[in-house]
Amino acid sequence: MLSREGCRSRRNRLWNALACDAILLSDPNSLIRYANFSVSPFVFQASSCRGFLLLSDAGQTTLVRDNQARPFAANAWFDQEVVATFYEGKASAPRREPLQTTACLQTLLDLKPKRLGVEAATVPWAILGPLQKAIHDLELIDIDSVIRQQRRSKDQDELGLLRKSIKAIDAGMDTALERLRPGMTEYDAYHIVQRAAWDSLGDQAVVYGDFASNSNGDIQRRGGPPTDRVIQSGDLFILDFSVIVHGYRGDFANTFVVGQPASSGQKALFETSLHGLAVAESMLRPGVAGKDIDRAAREAMAKRSGGDYFPSHMGHGIGLNHLEPPFIVPESSDTLEVGDVITLEPGQYVQGVGGMRFERNYLITADGFETLSNHKIALEQS
Amino acid sequence: MLSREGCRSRRNRLWNALACDAILLSDPNSLIRYANFSVSPFVFQASSCRGFLLLSDAGQTTLVRDNQARPFAANAWFDQEVVATFYEGKASAPRREPLQTTACLQTLLDLKPKRLGVEAATVPWAILGPLQKAIHDLELIDIDSVIRQQRRSKDQDELGLLRKSIKAIDAGMDTALERLRPGMTEYDAYHIVQRAAWDSLGDQAVVYGDFASNSNGDIQRRGGPPTDRVIQSGDLFILDFSVIVHGYRGDFANTFVVGQPASSGQKALFETSLHGLAVAESMLRPGVAGKDIDRAAREAMAKRSGGDYFPSHMGHGIGLNHLEPPFIVPESSDTLEVGDVITLEPGQYVQGVGGMRFERNYLITADGFETLSNHKIALEQS
Repeated sequence: MLSREGCRSRRNRLWNALACDAILLSDPNSLIRYANFSVSPFVFQASSCRGFLLLSDAGQTTLVRDNQARPFAANAWFDQEVVATFYEGKASAPRREPLQTTACLQTLLDLKPKRLGVEAATVPWAILGPLQKAIHDLELIDIDSVIRQQRRSKDQDELGLLRKSIKAIDAGMDTALERLRPGMTEYDAYHIVQRAAWDSLGDQAVVYGDFASNSNGDIQRRGGPPTDRVIQSGDLFILDFSVIVHGYRGDFANTFVVGQPASSGQKALFETSLHGLAVAESMLRPGVAGKDIDRAAREAMAKRSGGDYFPSHMGHGIGLNHLEPPFIVPESSDTLEVGDVITLEPGQYVQGVGGMRFERNYLITADGFETLSNHKIALEQS
Repeated sequence: MLSREGCRSRRNRLWNALACDAILLSDPNSLIRYANFSVSPFVFQASSCRGFLLLSDAGQTTLVRDNQARPFAANAWFDQEVVATFYEGKASAPRREPLQTTACLQTLLDLKPKRLGVEAATVPWAILGPLQKAIHDLELIDIDSVIRQQRRSKDQDELGLLRKSIKAIDAGMDTALERLRPGMTEYDAYHIVQRAAWDSLGDQAVVYGDFASNSNGDIQRRGGPPTDRVIQSGDLFILDFSVIVHGYRGDFANTFVVGQPASSGQKALFETSLHGLAVAESMLRPGVAGKDIDRAAREAMAKRSGGDYFPSHMGHGIGLNHLEPPFIVPESSDTLEVGDVITLEPGQYVQGVGGMRFERNYLITADGFETLSNHKIALEQS
C-alpha cells in the first residue's frame, strides 16, 4: 500500500502547485494516490463505492465516504473523515450515490471555500452545482492537468506497488512458459497465470490482458482476453498482461511456441524483435524524445527484417492508469523524465510465419534506466 | 447480454416517466441497463472507460465515448455514436476523462436542450457547468429516483443475465462442496469456485464474496474475502458469493463442515436456519412488507433455538448493484413487487458451536415466487 508519508508528500506538492484555499479530489485514481483509499474490485460494486478527498488550507485532509466503504478507509491516510450512513442491516438503504454527494456538499458548505480546486471531469454536478448557488463568488479551478503532470514521476511507495505488481507478473509469465501444454484452452492459461500471480502477491488482484493463441503462422490475433480456444501444438501464444495492485500495474509480454521448437522463420522474428528492444533500451535516459526511441527501434527492426512488420506501438508510460505519458510512438510529444515508469514492446508480425512481441518495464533514472521486470523472454518452452 | 428490444423498452419507459426534452445518462449501471454498454473489468482500467448516453426528443439515442471503448460499444444498442479519439498508437494521448466530458458537452451544445434529465450524483461537473453557462434557461432535472424505481422490476433480458450469473454461482457452490479438503487455503477454495463459475459462463467474470473458514465453533468471521488461512478438518466454511455478468449478479450462500460430519449442535443450527428460510419463503408474494418477512422468520428461528442467534439481515433486492430494495430487515420500508429479484439469507451463529447461513435467490411473481438458485444446501460434504 502507499505510505502515510508518500500520500502527505504528494498532497503537499499538489497544494503548493496551486493557489487554492481548498481542493476536492474525486477521481478514484486520486483517492488512491493522495490517500491510499483503494476500492477492491472484489468487494461490492466498485463504481458505487466512492470517496471524496477534501484538502483545506488548515492543512486538514478530510475523507468523505459512506459506512459501507469502511474496509477501504481502514487503510487510507487522512486527518478526519465524514461518514454517511448508507446501510446497517436494520432499515432500507437510501440511494447510495446521492447520499455520498450530499455528504460531500455539506462538508464543502461548512468549509466555505472561495477558490476551490476540482477534478472537473469526474466531480459530480450534484456537488458543485448547489455549491456554486450557495457561494456566489466561488471560483472553480480545474486541476486535472496539474495532477496528471505530477503523476508522471513515481515516488518510492508508488514504485513499491509497481514492483509488487511486476513481481506477480514475472511469476505468472514464468509459470505459463513452464506449464502451458497443447490441449489446454486459453482460459486454462489464464487460470494458471492468475494463480501464480496471486500466490506471488499473497492477495487477490485483477489480472487482465492478452492471452491470445494463433495457429499456422496466423497473425490475426495480436491480443485480446482469453477464450475457450484449444491451444494446439505449434501455436504461438502471445501473453501480455497486467496485475493491478491497489490501482498500480506493470504490463509486459512474452510470446512462445507451445509444445514444439520454433521454426527458423519464427526464430528470425524473435531475433529481430529483441534487437528492436535492445536498441530502444539503449536510448533510455532523461531528455530523450519518445518519437526518437520509436524511430530508432523501428528502423533497426526494418533494416534487419527487410520490411515493416511492426504495426503496433513501441511503448508508453505505466502507473495508475492505462495509456499514460510518456508515449513512445512515431508522433509522440513526450520526453523521458526521471521517475517515469515505462514499457517497451516491440514485435514482428509476418503472416505465414507468426506474430510475436516481447516487452519489459523500466524505471527512468538520472543516469539511464533500471529494468523492473525479470521474466524469462523465450520463444520456446524448455 | 441485454437485448435491443429490452434496452429500447426501458428507454421508452424512462422517457415517458419524465417531461424532459433530453436525458443524459452517466451512471455506469445506466449505460448497461439502457444500452448494454458494459465495460469489462478485465480490459484497461474500468473507471476511466466511460460512456455517456443521450436520449433526445427526436427518439434518437446517442452514445458518447472514446475510441478505446470500442469493444464495449460493439455490443451496445444505440442509434448513433460520437467517438472522441483518445489513442491510436501514433501520437501521445490526451487526458482521457476531460476528452470524454468535452465530447459529451459538445454533443449537448449541438442539441440545445431546455429541460435536461440528468443523474446528478454521477454526471461530471465539466459537462453541466459549461452547459448551464451556454444555455441560460436550461432546466436540470435529477432523474435518479425515477431510475431507481424503474430498476426494481426486472425485464426478461435482465432476468436472463441474472439466471446466467446464478447458474455460474450454482456451479461454484456445488464444486466447492464436492472438492474442498482440509489442508487447502481459502485462496484454493476461491480458485476452485472461480474456475467452476467461469466454465459455467464460458467467460471471464468477477467472482467476489465471502470465503471464510472458522475453527472450533468460532463465529468471529461471518464473511470476508479469502485469505491464505489453511482450512482444517472440522472447520465450518461460509461460502457466500456473487458472479458479475454484464453488471448483474446473483448472490447466495451455503455453509458446510470441511472433511468431517457435523456435530449435533451444528445440525441443530442448520435445521433452525432452514426453518427460518422456509418461513420467509412461504411469505414471498407481491404486497408483503419486507419487515413482516424479517420478523416472522426471525421469530420462528428464535422460537426453535430459544434465543436470538441471528445478528445479520434477512434479505435484500439484487440486480445491478449491491444492496438494493426491497430490504427484508426489521425496519424496512419496502413491500415486495412483481419482478423483484431478492435474496433471503437467514443463519445461526452460536459461539462454541459454529456460525452458518444459507441463502437462495427468488423472483417475485404475480402469484408468489420462483426459486432462481438451485445449489445444494448441505451442512456436510457427502
